[in-house]
Amino acid sequence: MFNNINNFNPDELKNRSDAELEELCGKIREFLIHSVSKTGGHLASNLGVVELTTAIYASFDLPRDKIIWDVGHQSYVHKILSGRGEGFSSLRKFGGMSGFPKTSESEYDSFNTGHSSTSISAALGIARARDLAGDDYDVIAVFGDGALTGGMMFEALNDAGHSKNKMIAVLNDNAMSISKNVGALPAYLKELRSRPGYYRSKKAVERFLNKIPIIGLPMVRFIKRVKRMIRLYIIPTTIFDDLGFQYLGPVDGHDIKKLRSVFERAKLIDAPVLIHVKTKKGRGYSPAEHNPRKFHGVSEFDVDSGDTKSQGRDYSAVFGEKLTEIASDNDKVAAVTAAMPTGTGVVDFSKKFKDRFFDVGIAEQHAVTMCGGLAITGYSPVFAVYSSFLQRAYDQILHDICLQKLHVVFGVDRAGIVGADGETHQGLYDIAMLMQMPCMSVLSPSNFGELGDMLDYAVNKHDGPIAIRYPRGNIQTETGAEPFSFGKAAIVCEGSDITITAAGRMVKTAKGTANILAKKGISCEIIALRTLKPLDKDTIIKSAKKTKMTVTIEDGTRIGGVGSAILQLFADNNVMRKCMVSGFPDEPITHGSISQLDSLYGMDAKGISMRILEQYTGE
Amino acid sequence: MFNNINNFNPDELKNRSDAELEELCGKIREFLIHSVSKTGGHLASNLGVVELTTAIYASFDLPRDKIIWDVGHQSYVHKILSGRGEGFSSLRKFGGMSGFPKTSESEYDSFNTGHSSTSISAALGIARARDLAGDDYDVIAVFGDGALTGGMMFEALNDAGHSKNKMIAVLNDNAMSISKNVGALPAYLKELRSRPGYYRSKKAVERFLNKIPIIGLPMVRFIKRVKRMIRLYIIPTTIFDDLGFQYLGPVDGHDIKKLRSVFERAKLIDAPVLIHVKTKKGRGYSPAEHNPRKFHGVSEFDVDSGDTKSQGRDYSAVFGEKLTEIASDNDKVAAVTAAMPTGTGVVDFSKKFKDRFFDVGIAEQHAVTMCGGLAITGYSPVFAVYSSFLQRAYDQILHDICLQKLHVVFGVDRAGIVGADGETHQGLYDIAMLMQMPCMSVLSPSNFGELGDMLDYAVNKHDGPIAIRYPRGNIQTETGAEPFSFGKAAIVCEGSDITITAAGRMVKTAKGTANILAKKGISCEIIALRTLKPLDKDTIIKSAKKTKMTVTIEDGTRIGGVGSAILQLFADNNVMRKCMVSGFPDEPITHGSISQLDSLYGMDAKGISMRILEQYTGE
Repeated sequence: MFNNINNFNPDELKNRSDAELEELCGKIREFLIHSVSKTGGHLASNLGVVELTTAIYASFDLPRDKIIWDVGHQSYVHKILSGRGEGFSSLRKFGGMSGFPKTSESEYDSFNTGHSSTSISAALGIARARDLAGDDYDVIAVFGDGALTGGMMFEALNDAGHSKNKMIAVLNDNAMSISKNVGALPAYLKELRSRPGYYRSKKAVERFLNKIPIIGLPMVRFIKRVKRMIRLYIIPTTIFDDLGFQYLGPVDGHDIKKLRSVFERAKLIDAPVLIHVKTKKGRGYSPAEHNPRKFHGVSEFDVDSGDTKSQGRDYSAVFGEKLTEIASDNDKVAAVTAAMPTGTGVVDFSKKFKDRFFDVGIAEQHAVTMCGGLAITGYSPVFAVYSSFLQRAYDQILHDICLQKLHVVFGVDRAGIVGADGETHQGLYDIAMLMQMPCMSVLSPSNFGELGDMLDYAVNKHDGPIAIRYPRGNIQTETGAEPFSFGKAAIVCEGSDITITAAGRMVKTAKGTANILAKKGISCEIIALRTLKPLDKDTIIKSAKKTKMTVTIEDGTRIGGVGSAILQLFADNNVMRKCMVSGFPDEPITHGSISQLDSLYGMDAKGISMRILEQYTGE
Repeated sequence: MFNNINNFNPDELKNRSDAELEELCGKIREFLIHSVSKTGGHLASNLGVVELTTAIYASFDLPRDKIIWDVGHQSYVHKILSGRGEGFSSLRKFGGMSGFPKTSESEYDSFNTGHSSTSISAALGIARARDLAGDDYDVIAVFGDGALTGGMMFEALNDAGHSKNKMIAVLNDNAMSISKNVGALPAYLKELRSRPGYYRSKKAVERFLNKIPIIGLPMVRFIKRVKRMIRLYIIPTTIFDDLGFQYLGPVDGHDIKKLRSVFERAKLIDAPVLIHVKTKKGRGYSPAEHNPRKFHGVSEFDVDSGDTKSQGRDYSAVFGEKLTEIASDNDKVAAVTAAMPTGTGVVDFSKKFKDRFFDVGIAEQHAVTMCGGLAITGYSPVFAVYSSFLQRAYDQILHDICLQKLHVVFGVDRAGIVGADGETHQGLYDIAMLMQMPCMSVLSPSNFGELGDMLDYAVNKHDGPIAIRYPRGNIQTETGAEPFSFGKAAIVCEGSDITITAAGRMVKTAKGTANILAKKGISCEIIALRTLKPLDKDTIIKSAKKTKMTVTIEDGTRIGGVGSAILQLFADNNVMRKCMVSGFPDEPITHGSISQLDSLYGMDAKGISMRILEQYTGE
C-alpha cells in the first residue's frame, strides 16, 4: 500500500482508515528525510506537518478546495501528496522543483508564497471571490505561530473575522519561528495549548459545576478557584474569538483521527474558523527534533548522524563578529532582528549583550520604527535583516527613519541573488528601493575586511540612515589598497578603453570581464564603488571621461539601481559616453545556484563581456 | 485665567483643579474651531482630544516625559499647550506650522508621525533606550482605534507586551477611523466600552458573589448567568492583556477628573499599560459631531453653519464615477479601500455594489494581498489608495502581485505633491517604487478623460498588475487628439530643438516651459508619456534624435523615476543627447501649496526653463 511516494495519486487517499493514513505518514517521513539529506532544503517544518497535511488531503477535496501555505517552506508533504514526489531529486535546483508553492507547478498550489504572514489575506480574497461567484469550495490557510507575529496577519484576521465568508485558518503551533518564537503571543498560545479542547467544553462545564461547593469554603479561595476554572472550562474566548473567528482546539497535530474529526467539524461551520493545531518541528527524526533550528533550512546531511558539512565563514558571520566587537567598545550600540538571529549572525551578540539585543518577531515594520525610537534617544541601532524581507518595511524606512534623518544602520544580508530559495527571496530590489529614499546612504563591501570597516564607519562615524548590503555566502574580491572611506570609490585597476563600475561580489565579475576583454585588446578600468549612495562623482566621471564607454554591473534589478544613478550623474554633468547598464532583468528571477543564475541572465563575465563587445564595437 | 492660548505656557497647568482645567478646555475648543475655520485643517479629531491632551499635560512632566501622537493630525491641542498657539494662523501653510508633530518644531514633539500605527513601535524604542540608560521618564503613545487596524500596531504590542519596559499606551477610541472604523476590532472595542471600568472590578466581584444563588435556579439559566457575569465582572482579560499589557478602562475621555485619576494610577505601574479612553470626534462643535468625516480634514468653513466652499470635481471623484460605471458592465470588478472610502471617491461604488466593495481598515498590506486572492480567482480588484500610503504595501505589491503577474489595478491617488499635509504625505515615491517592480505597468493621465480611459483599459483590457497615478485636485491639460493607447505616448506639440517628456499634471508645466523657451527662439517638442512603464520607446527615441536635448519632468523624486528610465532607454539604444532630469530633489519635501512647492524646488515652468537655458546653451 502507498508504495509510490515518488508519484503519488491523491485519489489513493479516498476512504482510508486512520491506521492506513498513519502508515502513509511513516513512508512520507522516511522519504522526506532521505530525499532532503541529499538535496538540502527545509526539513524540520515539513516533518512537523506530515499528519496535518495528510489529514487535510483526506478530509478535503483538493484541488477543488484551495489550500494556501503561509511562507510555503512547509509545503513538501503537500507536494508529495499532489503527485510531485519525483521532483524532490531536483528540489531547489536550477530547472528543478521549487521549494515553495508555485501555481505554475501544480493546480494544487492555489497561491504562491515565500514571505511570511500572507496566507489569511490571500485566503480571504479567494473566499470572497468564491462567495461572489456563488461557489462552495473550502479555502484553507495554514500558518505557523511565527507568522502570527507579522502584523499583516492581524490586518487580515480583523477583516476576515468581521466578514461572513467561510474560511478555515489552521494555526500550526510548534512554538517556533525559524528560531524560538518571541513576544507576548507565544506565552499566550502556550496558555491556550494547555487548555482542554474547546470542543469538549460542554462536558467539562458539567463536570465543573458538579464540583462547585455549595457552602463551607472561605470566600477568597472560592473566588480564585472560580476564576481559574471559569477561565479554563467555561469561557471559550480566545484572541481569535475576539477577532471574529470561531476557535477550535487545541488539537494534537500528530493525531490523524483527531485532525480528521476537527476538520469535519470545521467544514460544517459557515463562518471563519480557526483551528489550533499543536505540532512538533522535526517530528520523527531525532536530530531535527533536538535541533529544529539547524534543520529548518539545511544543506545536505548524513541521515544517521544528522551531520552537515561546514559551510565556512560567510558575510553574516563576519557581520555578527564585527558588530559584537564594536558593541564592546560602544555601549550605545543595539542589535535588532526580525526572528532571524541565526541567519543574520547575531546569536553571539545576543548572548554577550542580552540587554541591547532585540528579537521582535517576524515584524520588520515594527523593527524599523522601534529602531527609530532607539535612535532618536541617542542609541545606534543596527537592524540585521535579509534584503527581501526588508521590503516589508519600505514605508517605515522612508517615513520614520529617512524623513527624520535618524541614525539607524541597516545590515542588509542576502543582498542580490540568493540562489535556491528563488524568486520570492532574491535580494534584487534593495538598491533601487534604498537609493530613492532621501537622506539614505548605501554601502556595498566586496570582502570581509570592507564589511568590517563599513560597519565600523556606519555605527561609529556616520549620522543619519545608512545601509550596508552584502551577499549570501562568502565570495570575496580585493578592491585595492586604499582603505574604505565614505563616499569614495576605489580604482581596482586602471585602463583606457572602458570603465567598468561594480560593487559587492560583482567586482569579481568585473575583473573576469576585464580579463576576457583584455584578450581582445580592450583595456578596462575597474571602479569598485563601495559607496552606492552618494556616488563618488569625481572618480566615476574622471574615469568615464578618459575611456570611451562605461559599463555598470550590479547584483540587483536593472531598473532604478546604481546603473541608472550613474546615468543620471552623467546627465547632470553633461558626460556623453556610451553606457551599458548590467543588472538582472525586470522579471521574476528563478531559483538555482548563484553562478547558474548569473550565467542564465548574462550576468557572468562571459555574458557581460559579450554584450560589451557588441556595443563597444557596434555603431 | 488662561487668557493666552496664543502663547500658552505649560507651567500654567501646574497644580490646577479639575474645574480650572475644564475652563481651559472650553477656551481651547473655541480657539480651535475659530482658528481652523480660517485655515482649514484637522478639526474633528482634535476636538475629540481636548480633555485627553489637557489631562496628559496636567498629569505628566512634559517634555521630560515623552508623548508620541500616532498619525499626528490630533496633535493641535498638544501644540497649543506647548506654546505654539500663534502658529495656528499659518497652520499647514508654506513656511508656517506643520499640521503634524515635528521634532524640529518643538522639544515637546518627541517623534515625527504622519502615517498610521507607528506610535507603539517608536515609544518602545524610546522606552528601551530610557531603560538602557537608566533614566526614569514616562513614555506615552496616543493612538486611535483606527490605527489599531494597522498590523504594525500588533507587531509592536506583541513585542512591547512581552518586554518589561514601562510604557503607557492610550487608546483614543472614538469608534471612527477617518470614516467609520471597520473589521472585527470595532465590535470588540464596543463590547469593552460597555464594560464597567476594570479598576472598579474588585467591588463588582464582591457584589456579584453576594448575588450568587446557592440553590433553586435551574442549571441552564445559572450557567448562562455565570458566564455573562464572569465575563463582565471577574475576568479582566482583554485582547490587550493577552498581548501582555495591563488594561485600564474604559474611561470617559471628556472627564478630566477620571482621566487624571487613571493616569496617576498608570504612572505607578512599572510595566506596559494600556488605557482605553472613550472620546467623541468633533466634541463640542455640533456640525463636527454630526459629520465627523467631513470635519476630519476640512478646508476653511463658516463657524455658524459649518458650511465649506465646494472644492469642485477632482481626480478622486472622476475615478470613483468611472469605476462605478465600469462595474455596472463588468460584474467581476471589485473595489478595495484601506479606510479611505471618501478620500478615494469610492463611496458611491460602496453603496451601489455593496457586495463587491471591501473596506479593510488601515491595512494596506492586507488590502493588496487580499486583492491578489480575488485576482487569482478571476476577479478584477481595484485598490484605491493614496500614493504615500501605498508605500506600506511595497512587499505585497512586489511579492504577492507582481511575481505572480496578477491582474490587480492600483488607483494611486494623491500622486505627486499633495500640499498642506507635507513631507510625510507627499506622493513622490510611487513612480520609482512601482517602476522597479517586475511585470508592473504604470499609467499617468493628464486630464479626467484620460483617467477614465486608462481605468477602463486597466480593468477591462489589461492583464497583470497595473497602476494609474493621478494627482490631488483637478489640474487638467489636453495632450492631443490621439486617444489613450497602452504603451503609446502622445506628441502634444512638435518642435525641433528640445524634447520635453512629461506626465500627469506636469504636461501643463511642460507647456508653460515651452512657451517661455519659445520666446527665446527655442522650439520644444512635448511628449505626454501617458504610459510610464513600459515606455513608448519609438516615439521617445524618434523625438530625442531629431532634437538636440531631452528634458524629462516628473511629479516625483528625481531618483529612479521616469527620467532615469528614459536615460536607461537612451543608453540601451545608444542615443547620445544632452539630458536633463527634472524631479523633486532627494530630500524631505515640506508643506505648502502645490504651486508654492513647485516654485520652491524649481519644478515650475520658470525654474525648469531657467535650468534648460543654462544647459542648452552651456558647454
